[in-house]
Amino acid sequence: MPHSSALCVYFFTLLSPVVTFTEDVEVLVFLPQNNSYPFSHARVAPAIFYAQRRLRADGGRYSGFRFNVQFEDSDCVNDALFGLVDRSCVRKPDLILGPVCEYEAAAVVRLASRWDIPVISAGALAAGFGDKHGEYSHLTRIAPSHVKMAETFAAMFEHFTWRSALLVYEDDKAERNCYFTLEGVYHLMAEFNIRTYAFSQEERVDTEDVLQNIQDTEVVIMCMGADKIREIMLAAHRRRLTNGSYMFFNVELFNASSYGNGSWKRGDKYDNDARQAYASLNTLTLLRTVKPEFENFSMEMKKSIEKAGYHDCKDCGSVNMFVEGFHDAMLLYAIALHEAMKNGYSKKNGTEITSRMWNRTFEGIAGQVSMDVNGDRNGDFSLMAMTNAEAGTFEVVANYFGENGTFQLLAAFNTDHFTLKGRHIAHTEIADK
Amino acid sequence: MPHSSALCVYFFTLLSPVVTFTEDVEVLVFLPQNNSYPFSHARVAPAIFYAQRRLRADGGRYSGFRFNVQFEDSDCVNDALFGLVDRSCVRKPDLILGPVCEYEAAAVVRLASRWDIPVISAGALAAGFGDKHGEYSHLTRIAPSHVKMAETFAAMFEHFTWRSALLVYEDDKAERNCYFTLEGVYHLMAEFNIRTYAFSQEERVDTEDVLQNIQDTEVVIMCMGADKIREIMLAAHRRRLTNGSYMFFNVELFNASSYGNGSWKRGDKYDNDARQAYASLNTLTLLRTVKPEFENFSMEMKKSIEKAGYHDCKDCGSVNMFVEGFHDAMLLYAIALHEAMKNGYSKKNGTEITSRMWNRTFEGIAGQVSMDVNGDRNGDFSLMAMTNAEAGTFEVVANYFGENGTFQLLAAFNTDHFTLKGRHIAHTEIADK
Repeated sequence: MPHSSALCVYFFTLLSPVVTFTEDVEVLVFLPQNNSYPFSHARVAPAIFYAQRRLRADGGRYSGFRFNVQFEDSDCVNDALFGLVDRSCVRKPDLILGPVCEYEAAAVVRLASRWDIPVISAGALAAGFGDKHGEYSHLTRIAPSHVKMAETFAAMFEHFTWRSALLVYEDDKAERNCYFTLEGVYHLMAEFNIRTYAFSQEERVDTEDVLQNIQDTEVVIMCMGADKIREIMLAAHRRRLTNGSYMFFNVELFNASSYGNGSWKRGDKYDNDARQAYASLNTLTLLRTVKPEFENFSMEMKKSIEKAGYHDCKDCGSVNMFVEGFHDAMLLYAIALHEAMKNGYSKKNGTEITSRMWNRTFEGIAGQVSMDVNGDRNGDFSLMAMTNAEAGTFEVVANYFGENGTFQLLAAFNTDHFTLKGRHIAHTEIADK
Repeated sequence: MPHSSALCVYFFTLLSPVVTFTEDVEVLVFLPQNNSYPFSHARVAPAIFYAQRRLRADGGRYSGFRFNVQFEDSDCVNDALFGLVDRSCVRKPDLILGPVCEYEAAAVVRLASRWDIPVISAGALAAGFGDKHGEYSHLTRIAPSHVKMAETFAAMFEHFTWRSALLVYEDDKAERNCYFTLEGVYHLMAEFNIRTYAFSQEERVDTEDVLQNIQDTEVVIMCMGADKIREIMLAAHRRRLTNGSYMFFNVELFNASSYGNGSWKRGDKYDNDARQAYASLNTLTLLRTVKPEFENFSMEMKKSIEKAGYHDCKDCGSVNMFVEGFHDAMLLYAIALHEAMKNGYSKKNGTEITSRMWNRTFEGIAGQVSMDVNGDRNGDFSLMAMTNAEAGTFEVVANYFGENGTFQLLAAFNTDHFTLKGRHIAHTEIADK
């Protein structure tokens, strides 16, 4: 009998190479109840439940994981830390998702790292979190960080042989999205000549002073609300600085009011000037990919929001980087936990599970997700430029792929548009990679 | 019998108006084990024990308080927070002393305020902690904060009708003593024309660039290591900027390497120039008071250190602001707890006890301690200037008293020394207050 049962196990293993483990996983999720955030609970929770259902239902290797998902409010200040401490005195979670906001994430990740609990966030994008040797050892970033975004600029600077930039940003002194965004550029591009110009959210932007400061530079990279970008571009246009002697960029990473988009139209008397000025403005944004499964996911997200009846939640049904990210976080954790258990580790070994989430590529909800050796997602970004000056419309003209660091120029790309006029000789031999 | 016992109580109360309460108080103290800090455990713990003994021994109203003092390490990063969280899951303390370092204190005070635990620190001196309406509601600062220090500058600017200053500081990007010190000036003196100039600790100070930046200003306030102050003063002297057309100040709040002192002597060939240059340099420092009891305290501190045999601990036996502060913190808490209990509140009502520590004056170990309505100690500061140009020696020439905001000019004070030459007409009718 012992012999035949061993044989059974042998055949079972041969016939069914999918090993499943039965495990309860306590997940503690930090998301704001306040719907004004693009990563609010209302928007993101349905994606986490979608992933949970998908993992359970497919009958595959992850179907034995029972995720018990608990939510705590995140107010982007201290609520997440308080929530974690209060809960952990009773029972520590196995996995933490979020928080997104930088300062709040810092406190949570420090404590989680000390307690050997993996944290996956679609936020915590600031440069400081990149140091995983100390207090942020257990953080995995499932959305491309600001330093990853900065790689796109570094690649452009190399290609076009630009050397200097002025980073102009609006600092709200609270969540500091724009500060942290351009800090990524400052951090990564230390070998270039980079200066900064900040103004506070409350004050009027002194466009004359901004323009005075751009004089010694080639490239102006802006991060601020849409109206302030328009003010600066109009002032630059008045002073004939939009004639190609400077490169203007703005950064729009997700649909938050802190990031201005490239829309010049306001229905006022300056629209015509603005359209002309914006011909010199290029926008860096996340590369969007779509695959068949994503359509279903996207529809499910819309339905969930409609069912919950969030009438105060503008754009709540549209899937953004955070919604995708937190979905994919569940998948990535399941993959790593399964692999760790197959190798004899328990779910309580957060260090082991964390290391298995790093340096791997997997299929996320919107496409392939590539995690670098440091546990940070490689980012793909798109560069948009005005391609029809009369209509004032923008198109993606180039893409940057973070995994292999390549810059892809599309058909709509116009070398002349990115060639500095007057003072500089640009590198002209750029071909598609 | 009931009648006569009531009578006894009545007479007892009449004869002995001192009410004592018996209460165990759990005190959790956060101090660095690392002796390189002027507020290390080795230096400060004896002062806390001294206060504990004194409160117990005097047979007075506080003798019933049994302080159970526990220490946790503070590494000026996260250790204090971890220590608090780990301990508090088992049992929350009644009182927290420290931490001193700003970032570490922030995390501890937030959690303590949420848990209704009073925190008293001789640190947490940054301007941000002054807002007691939110996350720092339970913080009492027993040493004068940087904003209190800045009051001295504000008073000087008023007296001498100076209008503009450049704040030059070295930023270590870790504990950031000098950043937070001059932030206090920036914060308080918003009505003046204040600009800043920072350089990182690692880089050489570009004295030419500093001097370029002082051109439009009247007053230069520096916070940095002693050698860098000397470099700047020597460069200023070479460019004949030490002729009275600028006022130079440095800030030395406690004996930490981040604060440079006023010593110009190095035994090199620049000593003579440095002595001449330092004739234009004034140092703002804490006002030192001494009373008979302090001598005993000071001797006890020396003895404790000698007994413990800290041979690696330079200046360990000398009493500084932190040593005094943590001693006085115990006294202040005892006064407030006693008053709260007399009014029927328990030691667990941290809000009540905290409020009774504010807006009161009491006798500390080195002199009177005055707490403002916001729970921050009023500060007394001294201004030192060179009074013997040949010997190059400094003396206290003026004192600022925070409680009533007065500026006291001493006999050694020389109006001419503080009168801007050349470009400015100074206010000349200054009399002793």
